[in-house]
Amino acid sequence: MRTSIATVSLSGSLTEKLTAASRAGFDGVEIFENDLLASPLSPEEIRARCADLGLSIDLYQPMRDIEAVPAEEFARNLRRARHKFELMRRLGADTVLVCSSVHPLAVDDDALAADHLSQLAHLAQEFGIRVAYEALAWGRHVNTYGHAWRIVEAADHPALGTCLDSFHILSRGSDPKGIADIPGEKIFFLQLADAPLLAMDVLQWSRHYRCFPGQGGFDVAGLVRNVLGAGYDGPLSLEVFNDVFRQAEAGPTAVDAHRSLLVLQETVGVATPPAPVVPTGVAFAELVTPDAEPVAAVLGALGFARAARHRTKPVDLWQQGEARILVNTSGAARRTGTGLAAIGLESPDPAGAARRAEALLAPVLPRRRAAADAPLDAVAAPDGTELFFCATDRPELPNWRADFADGAGVPHGTDDTGGSHRAGVHRIDHLALTQPWHHFDEAALFHRSVLGLHAQESVDVADPYGLMRSRAVTNADGSVRIALGVGAAPTDDTVHAQHIALATSDVVGAARRFREAGGRLLPIPANYYDDLAARHEFADGELETYRELGILYDRDVHGEFRHCYTMTVGRVFFELVQRDGYRGYGAQNAPVRLAAQHTARAVIGG
Amino acid sequence: MRTSIATVSLSGSLTEKLTAASRAGFDGVEIFENDLLASPLSPEEIRARCADLGLSIDLYQPMRDIEAVPAEEFARNLRRARHKFELMRRLGADTVLVCSSVHPLAVDDDALAADHLSQLAHLAQEFGIRVAYEALAWGRHVNTYGHAWRIVEAADHPALGTCLDSFHILSRGSDPKGIADIPGEKIFFLQLADAPLLAMDVLQWSRHYRCFPGQGGFDVAGLVRNVLGAGYDGPLSLEVFNDVFRQAEAGPTAVDAHRSLLVLQETVGVATPPAPVVPTGVAFAELVTPDAEPVAAVLGALGFARAARHRTKPVDLWQQGEARILVNTSGAARRTGTGLAAIGLESPDPAGAARRAEALLAPVLPRRRAAADAPLDAVAAPDGTELFFCATDRPELPNWRADFADGAGVPHGTDDTGGSHRAGVHRIDHLALTQPWHHFDEAALFHRSVLGLHAQESVDVADPYGLMRSRAVTNADGSVRIALGVGAAPTDDTVHAQHIALATSDVVGAARRFREAGGRLLPIPANYYDDLAARHEFADGELETYRELGILYDRDVHGEFRHCYTMTVGRVFFELVQRDGYRGYGAQNAPVRLAAQHTARAVIGG
Repeated sequence: MRTSIATVSLSGSLTEKLTAASRAGFDGVEIFENDLLASPLSPEEIRARCADLGLSIDLYQPMRDIEAVPAEEFARNLRRARHKFELMRRLGADTVLVCSSVHPLAVDDDALAADHLSQLAHLAQEFGIRVAYEALAWGRHVNTYGHAWRIVEAADHPALGTCLDSFHILSRGSDPKGIADIPGEKIFFLQLADAPLLAMDVLQWSRHYRCFPGQGGFDVAGLVRNVLGAGYDGPLSLEVFNDVFRQAEAGPTAVDAHRSLLVLQETVGVATPPAPVVPTGVAFAELVTPDAEPVAAVLGALGFARAARHRTKPVDLWQQGEARILVNTSGAARRTGTGLAAIGLESPDPAGAARRAEALLAPVLPRRRAAADAPLDAVAAPDGTELFFCATDRPELPNWRADFADGAGVPHGTDDTGGSHRAGVHRIDHLALTQPWHHFDEAALFHRSVLGLHAQESVDVADPYGLMRSRAVTNADGSVRIALGVGAAPTDDTVHAQHIALATSDVVGAARRFREAGGRLLPIPANYYDDLAARHEFADGELETYRELGILYDRDVHGEFRHCYTMTVGRVFFELVQRDGYRGYGAQNAPVRLAAQHTARAVIGG
Repeated sequence: MRTSIATVSLSGSLTEKLTAASRAGFDGVEIFENDLLASPLSPEEIRARCADLGLSIDLYQPMRDIEAVPAEEFARNLRRARHKFELMRRLGADTVLVCSSVHPLAVDDDALAADHLSQLAHLAQEFGIRVAYEALAWGRHVNTYGHAWRIVEAADHPALGTCLDSFHILSRGSDPKGIADIPGEKIFFLQLADAPLLAMDVLQWSRHYRCFPGQGGFDVAGLVRNVLGAGYDGPLSLEVFNDVFRQAEAGPTAVDAHRSLLVLQETVGVATPPAPVVPTGVAFAELVTPDAEPVAAVLGALGFARAARHRTKPVDLWQQGEARILVNTSGAARRTGTGLAAIGLESPDPAGAARRAEALLAPVLPRRRAAADAPLDAVAAPDGTELFFCATDRPELPNWRADFADGAGVPHGTDDTGGSHRAGVHRIDHLALTQPWHHFDEAALFHRSVLGLHAQESVDVADPYGLMRSRAVTNADGSVRIALGVGAAPTDDTVHAQHIALATSDVVGAARRFREAGGRLLPIPANYYDDLAARHEFADGELETYRELGILYDRDVHGEFRHCYTMTVGRVFFELVQRDGYRGYGAQNAPVRLAAQHTARAVIGG
């Protein structure tokens, strides 16, 4: 199906918006009147620009409060409409949106409304224009799609049809089933927006909190099925008023928007991109750093051994059990410092996973970084993290591990990758990635739709300097868990650290050995343990051990959770977690951990 | 009365919060449990720190879901309470807050609730602690203050009283009159918060949108009158959960908070700070700039003459009619570029105005900048703008004008300050100041309470790169108008320009002369004028004139408004306004103006 986006959904000048929409693959746009008024381009120039960019102008929306108003007011409306129809002819737009009236003098008279809309359609027809009449959720007298359709039906004019908007219909809890009774050719337009399920004034909800389909709580796909069932064959058009998107760079927002429509079309069965290939584990995490020593010291103390070195690049593979961490000291890290740059995901079908990612607009990375490397499928996530689709130790597929030479340059031959080492780290439990502030909702939709992961509810976490949000995406058996975090404000993009959580079956032993090996654990305030003592009963000495090592404790209905943290290196720290059935991420303890990290930074002056 | 603030209302570590509260003049604090848990200080150290800072610890709030729960659960609660009471003894806190239960197993049984609370109070009494029971607005069975009081009354224990919270009472629309029936000595605590009048889920409203009294829409003063009428003599304590305050620097937030309580005490008649002295006009606006030439060129083209020079400082006085603009090239501007640094307000009693400002915690600036200067009362607004209280040409008072030597160094002797110059600028219409993102609500309360101005409703304005908000504060006759603006995100603090709007009775003539004198007006897109033609009827040629000059048009029920803009110099531009009865600020046209300014910046590469 054709896809379209309202310019109000994107940030910037009109030409920035058009360029972003075109690059993201949209077929058309709705031009929001204020964007046209504020543009230095004439309507003819805008038309030409759209044509150059391969965009049709699917809708224009210049008028409000048209119908069921006093005669004098309606005469002024017709005069204004004539001006706007002339403009639309210059613009090359053939559909005008008319929302149901919110005018204080509008009367509750369907016959009058139908008569006025019919007169408007008659005028529009002279200009080759169609009028699409839409019920606003807060329309004064007309606020359901059924009511708007009854008026259109009564007016019975060929240039008059209805426009359906998923927000206006679903925010009121209307049942979209009735859409099937509207003749498809009378549905002139379909505007789509999702929204989080908030209990708030519907006008404010609509103006500030709309989001792209799949990012909120509405069943937008169910509504679209009904509209398609009615025979609608116009574009799927996004009209999203969102305070965050208004600020965000238009290019990434447009890609996020278009991805949402591609996924929606797959859901309703009108498009078949390559099927998702759900990852089955974490092959590796890759750190980039300008200086390997501090990272190596922490990894060594955690019990990792430097198992192999890349044949052609300055990348070491550190391993313990099935936990593998690449330490990359190539030039890229000079600018950004130590950070988590890439994740290797075990994939049943690496090439298929990459094909799906590409179809859903993820930037594809070169398969072969150097002539000698094994070809490896990889894409970039919205936050820039590189995702490699791997098939570790499967002879029928290219093996990233083959690019690494065992033992070469390894100082002490302690390759204990057997995995059965008592109480050591056996695998990566989860990875925590800080997201760009303006693209948090995009990140969840990306991981859900591109990787086929399940997105859990977003939770608020109190950092001493502002509320953060966190949302986990996981596969079914929990062998892939990624926690997406975002700070309180755009300025926080680089403040919060990322981390790698390592699974162990004995966090006390692992923490103790880490400390004995010279590692430094994040100190946790004594007050935290007094509170634990008030909330839970522990075996003799247990709490003292936790207090000594800085181990935090939580439980849910599934089991217990014990975890502790290393000090931060650059923008990264490590967590040791012992998960005895527990399914969460210790969100309860996050405020204490965040405050302790601020304290530690203040103490060491970092 | 004693004043107190909950640590959750401020940003930062516990010690940062305590320091900020003390510096702002609070007498005590409520310590929020998470702040204590996350602090590396022991309870004894926190107690000592508070004592050093002159702060009492008025309340601790460590427990939820205490009462009317199953017996086994209640036994655990008592065990936990004993731990917490021991902690409070170490902390030196003698009042514990208990909120009404939201526990899923809590039963609707007032007798059981009273029995549980009585048992809790009995235990508390052993530790010298009082229990204050409060109805949460979303409590499972107890959610009104009347209900909470009936349970406290039934329990009839000397260590059990009630806590009143203005948010929980007013958000539900409860009538606070019934508070008068509660014996004052049984009101153990009073928590205050205001909130904007939002239609939304009350829990979310409470957790994210509370604000300080006078910054929202609640009648907090009316509630406090009822509580004082009941005989309450404890502290007035602020408990404000607010996403913005969580991020903002604690020092200014604490000052803002304490000011709100000072104003509240004045409103309810328990404190009498010096009365407000409402300004009666704008004496001058002062620009600081590293280079006077670009500013001088614009002012000259606008018809201003350089009328005088400061006797001892590099400050020129430019004048036209009653509009006076100081151009200051002293060193301060080197760092910040050209900006609006100070406003002179005509005051019937400059010393009285400064006394009130000081009593309401505005930083007082030195009265005399140099030995020879006339002493001038001045304070700093929250955004750093210096406010001078002036008495221009009143012989009985020090006259700032006397520091300026007429004609000295003025190149062309065109001192046309007579004011009757046809169609010229006759006075400053309004000043638009960009506010720090984190302190927008503070700014409105400051101008209202310190200067006695009236604050209008805040309006959203769509900038191409994010929503802005704007709120005007004015005196009764409109001779002082200040528009407070704020960008979409903290990063926007320095993006948006400030401006000086100049009143003229003939904006067409003034704009034309400005252009003929070499001035550059902000170009407005042609599409804007096509829309004006669709919306209004104009006399022949009128619209063409506006289009030629870039004049914008608006009207309200009071009259018409015509205005245009100069190009921006540094962070400042000028507006020419012709206000024929109109009372607004052209908010309708602001999106077009903002987009045009972005376009102009892009064109000139600024």
